[in-house]
Amino acid sequence: MDLLNTYLIYLIPVFGLVGIVVMAIKSAWVTKQETGDASMNQLAGYIADGAMAFLRAEWKILSYFVVVAGILLAWSGTTVGDKSSPVIVISFVIGAFLSAFAGYLGMRIATKSNVRTTQAAKTSLAQALKVSFTGGTVMGLGVAGLAIIGLGSLFIVFYTMYVTSKGENVNGEAMAKALDVLAGFSLGAESIALFARVGGGIYTKAADVGADLVGKVEAGIPEDDVRNPATIADNVGDNVGDVAGMGADLFGSYVATMLATMVLGREIVSHDNFGGIAPVLLPMVIAGLGLIFSIVGASLVKIKKETDSVQAALNLGNWASIILTAIATYFLVQWMLPADSFHMVRDEDASGAIKAGSLVFTKNGVFGSILVGLVVGTLMSIITEYYTAMGKRPVMSIIRQSATGHATNIIGGLAVGMESTVLPIIVLAAGIYGSYFFAGLYGVAIAAAGMMATTAMQLAIDAFGPIADNAGGIAEMSRLPEEVRGRTDNLDAVGNTTAATGKGFAIASAALTSLALFAAFVGVAGIEHIDIYKANVLAGLFVGGMIPFIFSALCISAVGRAAMAMVEEVRRQFREIPGIMEYKARPEYEKCVEISTKASIREMVAPGLIALITPIVIGFLFGPEVLGGLLAGVTVSGVLMGIFQSNAGGAWDNAKKSFEKGVEINGEIYYKKSEPHKASVTGDTVGDPFKDTSGPSMNILIKLMSIVSLVIAPHLNTADATNKMMQKQEKVQSMNVHQIHADKKI
Amino acid sequence: MDLLNTYLIYLIPVFGLVGIVVMAIKSAWVTKQETGDASMNQLAGYIADGAMAFLRAEWKILSYFVVVAGILLAWSGTTVGDKSSPVIVISFVIGAFLSAFAGYLGMRIATKSNVRTTQAAKTSLAQALKVSFTGGTVMGLGVAGLAIIGLGSLFIVFYTMYVTSKGENVNGEAMAKALDVLAGFSLGAESIALFARVGGGIYTKAADVGADLVGKVEAGIPEDDVRNPATIADNVGDNVGDVAGMGADLFGSYVATMLATMVLGREIVSHDNFGGIAPVLLPMVIAGLGLIFSIVGASLVKIKKETDSVQAALNLGNWASIILTAIATYFLVQWMLPADSFHMVRDEDASGAIKAGSLVFTKNGVFGSILVGLVVGTLMSIITEYYTAMGKRPVMSIIRQSATGHATNIIGGLAVGMESTVLPIIVLAAGIYGSYFFAGLYGVAIAAAGMMATTAMQLAIDAFGPIADNAGGIAEMSRLPEEVRGRTDNLDAVGNTTAATGKGFAIASAALTSLALFAAFVGVAGIEHIDIYKANVLAGLFVGGMIPFIFSALCISAVGRAAMAMVEEVRRQFREIPGIMEYKARPEYEKCVEISTKASIREMVAPGLIALITPIVIGFLFGPEVLGGLLAGVTVSGVLMGIFQSNAGGAWDNAKKSFEKGVEINGEIYYKKSEPHKASVTGDTVGDPFKDTSGPSMNILIKLMSIVSLVIAPHLNTADATNKMMQKQEKVQSMNVHQIHADKKI
Repeated sequence: MDLLNTYLIYLIPVFGLVGIVVMAIKSAWVTKQETGDASMNQLAGYIADGAMAFLRAEWKILSYFVVVAGILLAWSGTTVGDKSSPVIVISFVIGAFLSAFAGYLGMRIATKSNVRTTQAAKTSLAQALKVSFTGGTVMGLGVAGLAIIGLGSLFIVFYTMYVTSKGENVNGEAMAKALDVLAGFSLGAESIALFARVGGGIYTKAADVGADLVGKVEAGIPEDDVRNPATIADNVGDNVGDVAGMGADLFGSYVATMLATMVLGREIVSHDNFGGIAPVLLPMVIAGLGLIFSIVGASLVKIKKETDSVQAALNLGNWASIILTAIATYFLVQWMLPADSFHMVRDEDASGAIKAGSLVFTKNGVFGSILVGLVVGTLMSIITEYYTAMGKRPVMSIIRQSATGHATNIIGGLAVGMESTVLPIIVLAAGIYGSYFFAGLYGVAIAAAGMMATTAMQLAIDAFGPIADNAGGIAEMSRLPEEVRGRTDNLDAVGNTTAATGKGFAIASAALTSLALFAAFVGVAGIEHIDIYKANVLAGLFVGGMIPFIFSALCISAVGRAAMAMVEEVRRQFREIPGIMEYKARPEYEKCVEISTKASIREMVAPGLIALITPIVIGFLFGPEVLGGLLAGVTVSGVLMGIFQSNAGGAWDNAKKSFEKGVEINGEIYYKKSEPHKASVTGDTVGDPFKDTSGPSMNILIKLMSIVSLVIAPHLNTADATNKMMQKQEKVQSMNVHQIHADKKI
Repeated sequence: MDLLNTYLIYLIPVFGLVGIVVMAIKSAWVTKQETGDASMNQLAGYIADGAMAFLRAEWKILSYFVVVAGILLAWSGTTVGDKSSPVIVISFVIGAFLSAFAGYLGMRIATKSNVRTTQAAKTSLAQALKVSFTGGTVMGLGVAGLAIIGLGSLFIVFYTMYVTSKGENVNGEAMAKALDVLAGFSLGAESIALFARVGGGIYTKAADVGADLVGKVEAGIPEDDVRNPATIADNVGDNVGDVAGMGADLFGSYVATMLATMVLGREIVSHDNFGGIAPVLLPMVIAGLGLIFSIVGASLVKIKKETDSVQAALNLGNWASIILTAIATYFLVQWMLPADSFHMVRDEDASGAIKAGSLVFTKNGVFGSILVGLVVGTLMSIITEYYTAMGKRPVMSIIRQSATGHATNIIGGLAVGMESTVLPIIVLAAGIYGSYFFAGLYGVAIAAAGMMATTAMQLAIDAFGPIADNAGGIAEMSRLPEEVRGRTDNLDAVGNTTAATGKGFAIASAALTSLALFAAFVGVAGIEHIDIYKANVLAGLFVGGMIPFIFSALCISAVGRAAMAMVEEVRRQFREIPGIMEYKARPEYEKCVEISTKASIREMVAPGLIALITPIVIGFLFGPEVLGGLLAGVTVSGVLMGIFQSNAGGAWDNAKKSFEKGVEINGEIYYKKSEPHKASVTGDTVGDPFKDTSGPSMNILIKLMSIVSLVIAPHLNTADATNKMMQKQEKVQSMNVHQIHADKKI
């Protein structure tokens, strides 16, 4: 047991390695599956090529960004001297590289699994599920595995370099420096994630909206029709946005959550058997266990008969991994954490005694916080599903309001989206309150870590959706028999539900992660309060609250512009290439792919820079407390706008889908092509950028701004501009005191 | 001069009285004007009756509310004992009554001026402007006059009763009690304002959307056509929403701003010639001067020729009143405030010396803050105009996006609305920063007071819009000659611009007022910080941020529901009453009026109760600091949602209006009835509840929640639930300390 205590730290990357090995085996299995006929292979080839073309274009821009940001980081590390280190650059570059690599792995397997799923759907639903879900699992394990290997190994390196090799105190400055350098890894990962999410989001919706507006509405051809020049771009978009974007998002959350918990754990005085760093190691070990149990859970996802429920199979796997991880975590906490209580170093006075009113907590408190995190994640998913599911009140209300036209459909969806913020916010507020109650700010962070533990499983379920969607697209484009399409449709419908719940999970994780980072930031910046009763902090809160609005505006209008360019290109091809409509001429798919690629790369820059630069400017100009106000504003407003937009979009989407089977409004049944259906298509189109571009981007926005703040925190002078206002006033005061004395003399 | 010093306090209500006398003279002049032919009189009669029917229905519900709230207030005043007083009930009831009475005065004059403006338009534009603007002036003077008389007189009463008659210290508890009781006046005013704004907003848009959807879209008859059964309800709505609702809103802001400044002024140590209460009296005297200069400014609003610019005339009057008030305020500040510097009582230590780091400011600083307020108000109006004006980039972008359909028009408008939050928030943040810099939190409050000084003039300009709109409606319904309609259209177009700038002013004033109330709340509640680094305060911030979303959702869906009921009624009348279309049968206008009335009264209750009850529940359960977090969240999110919704709505409206003259998109000119125009109508319909119901309601939401908090502040136990979490933890701590000792013994 003593041996395990000593070597636990080295075991962490091993967990990640196990994930990668399993991933490789599953990936090989998928590759071995049949790929179908030549037509299917050709279409799949177009999609894979388009996806790679986007990745290459994105990487080109991002490599410039990484170089510039790296130089700036190195420079700031050198100039500020002993508080930071140019070593952070290495950690930043590795984070950026692994994030991009995880995206690549996911995209590669997704573009392989799609056509193989179509082929498998020719034999049975069970086999189609197996192929598509295995594809998703590869993505999930890749993301989680790479994250744990990267973070775990770098921690070993920096911990040895700064702390153990010099015999430094694990609660002291040296450890703080090690973790500050490690934060570069998270910064790298989250920066790439932002561009992947925003770029991917713009790509997929420009293609989708463009394809729909001309194809479905003007030309009257079905979705995924091989005659539509934008259809390949649309299918590429599913991979670019829903696979690579979502993967990068969760990679970022996963890493940031662990990091924030470690930063807060550093400050805990712990008399444990791990050299006093059990609270620091705990989040990584939990993640490692979660990865192992995700593999177990994924192995349970299977069906036998055509009539078996796919959703039930996914739920079984999901719940198994969550419950097993929760049980294992209980024993882990009991084993790793000591029997006596914890408190933060900063809660000790000079003599080492605990200050009055300070927070003290126990290992059972820590486990309580982890449970709170699991409950919050689950409730958020359930609420999201309620607000976006077919047949439930919110979607039904939008359907009813489609009867009076486009405008009332839009009003209905906006109202549903706004209303849908209520329960998630109450759950989140209760979660903050509860996890803090159990274990202080460390509790808030570890709650997020608990929630994120089964990220591999969550992501497997998420990535399964677009794979199934693509498989259906290939079936439709290859005009395969009804039966095959029926099976892929079944998987796709389940994928739509998992997409909605996945978004609930992603936003909950982003919110808790940001709060954890926020707490870590305050500790690292060395400030005591963030007092919104101060005018400058309140001003920061306002400016922060505004950022998600301008960020959303930029994302939405980018999609609008790119979609219009797409519409014009598709119209041109229909006009200038004769024979497309009779299947005699092949549309120039690559032109549409190029439009989406170029637009997304170009348009992702402005929002990305806002997220990166704002905290730096505010932090250095106005000091850490105002930056804290800004972060709080961004987080609150970002979570609200994220939930509002994602849920409104999801509800509009399913209101439209409800018309496929026919819906009853005031005693009449309406189907596709009816006037209310047309109104519902308008809502769905408005909802597209809401739910797949701006809404999910909020997650990364709030995380990235927090992580940037955490990285710059040690460089911020607490006695700078924040207090200049006060200092100026003090001068006025002493001047006035002289004045008063002068007056009295007269 | 000594005499003036002593009696200045009694002069304040006299300012208000002057306003009321001038109002009566102007009202009599309007009443004397010709009312036109029998048909015009009949239509005007329907409108006036409908408006009064709404007011009566509203008053009935509100009288129940006032009774219940009054009893609760009296009970709380009795039970809490010496910190408050049941006398607050009197002040509450007077506030509620005066607010309702101001709304009545405005509505009565508006429903008189409309038909007289139509009649005047038969002779000249100059005369039509004179009648409609005089109507608006009556409203403005009535609101401002009643507010100053009410607040000024009650202050004299309570000041005498609690302070001077007992020889109490003007910076002490007795004065705090007097102002706390006075806060009841503001609470009464703001409560009525909430219901007027929300109820009026639902009324006007239910009628407008309902009338448009069936009339314009289905039956193909023009707006304001006498054959449309909902047209009278639509015209009533202009009075109910834009006149009474806006009036109550600004009445509330005006009173709340003065009150908040007085509360903060009470804490200022001032060696002045007014018994030490110059900082308390200052906001009321500024308001009095502003009222006088509004009368001067209003007298300048006139044109001579048909070709003169109406907008220029309004601008002249507006700027004259603002500049004259600013100049007069400079001399007022020099005269009233002493030469030595100020600080807050709470910034003194036990020995009476000023604590280090405290804020100290001078009378020039106070004037600086007032100037900041004026600049903020002006900039907010200019920015709002830019984002909603025809021919400017934002509206042009929506027009272009109408070419690709309903969905892209909606996406365009939403993006414009979100983008439009950026500059106002930066102006507001700079305003907070600047006014605080000059005179601390008193500076923030007095900045709001400076901005609100010319409320009478602002409101005159605002109320002119709906009067002109109504006049046009009557001209159209009475089928008067082209020439007459041209003149009313001219006035109406100017009214649309002033409506947009008025909204910018209203939201800026609400934001600054709320901040002033927020600052006053913190002082009264006796807390030192509102630290969002505390988990419970942060949870409060999240919940607060969510409230504007659910409030908007309720308002929007109320309009949606009521509009659908209206659509069905209009369809029924067209179906069941033969001869309507041939002008042979009179539609049953009163049925539509009833639908709007009932719906608005019913639907205003839920959002109203949320605004009133949330702060009470949170305050008593979790204590003042968490309530402070809640208020900050509501204010930030409310201001953002207010600007977003109002500007998106305004921009959609003008994008639609642009089609009347024809717009060029990609080289082609599009007019009314074209496909892009239809898309723009969808946007306008979505924007209707945004800009006239939920958007402007945000103003009152944030003010009312702040004023409720201020009223309950003295009753909140600072050592209550806020700190229970901490206390519990302390118990855990001491328990754990025993545990540790126990462990050591083993």
